[in-house]
Amino acid sequence: MSETQSVPQDFLAAIAFDANGLVPAIAQQHDSGEVLMMAWMNRDAVQETLETGRVCYWSRSRKALWRKGETSGQVQRLVELRIDCDQDCLLLLVDQTGVACHTGRRSCFFTAIRGGERKVIADVLMSPEKLYQP
Amino acid sequence: MSETQSVPQDFLAAIAFDANGLVPAIAQQHDSGEVLMMAWMNRDAVQETLETGRVCYWSRSRKALWRKGETSGQVQRLVELRIDCDQDCLLLLVDQTGVACHTGRRSCFFTAIRGGERKVIADVLMSPEKLYQP
Repeated sequence: MSETQSVPQDFLAAIAFDANGLVPAIAQQHDSGEVLMMAWMNRDAVQETLETGRVCYWSRSRKALWRKGETSGQVQRLVELRIDCDQDCLLLLVDQTGVACHTGRRSCFFTAIRGGERKVIADVLMSPEKLYQP
Repeated sequence: MSETQSVPQDFLAAIAFDANGLVPAIAQQHDSGEVLMMAWMNRDAVQETLETGRVCYWSRSRKALWRKGETSGQVQRLVELRIDCDQDCLLLLVDQTGVACHTGRRSCFFTAIRGGERKVIADVLMSPEKLYQP
């Protein structure tokens, strides 16, 4: 965190966190437009992400900050953060190293409904054993 | 609804709806990759969307099915529905007529944090008076 960025406090104050203090955050690869995953952030996660430029979520299962890629190396560098019209959802434009999904696929959205059937539409690019499941 | 599609019941049964019976749904323009909005669906909304090919959400404020564009004409045609690895988030690849946002902008994510400041990065394309706010 040698190069920290300033965080607009009015922006943080305006986020409409839910009853659990969380806001959904969509991660999208900034250049390809691929939607990689959706996870949750609390106020501290948003602040740390903006300060460090590394995406940090809130893990609802571990009840702790989840510094994406901290153990696996599959980090997300923040390119730009956006917020929606009613300020209750974030869109993170990121540069994803490797894969976003704990199954070893680039995106978590690898299952599609096509012709009335469920189909897996993406390949496993990395062994799941090398990845950390939050 | 003259041409309805079959809906895989095992798919509906596998969705991990939250304690309120809802699942977050991200709408993305299928060809440009633009993330348009995030809203919520219950089981009936998912089923109707798959059956009719027109996106239907659940309005948490009105506590009713929200057939996107029913009054404004700004409908979303479903191109493909995807679900994430832990089956608690949907990604809707859609073809958006006009604008997705009730402010008259194409996407709800029109505010960005850049250089420590909040900036509006998209133009109003349609008068908000012509649009319906759920």
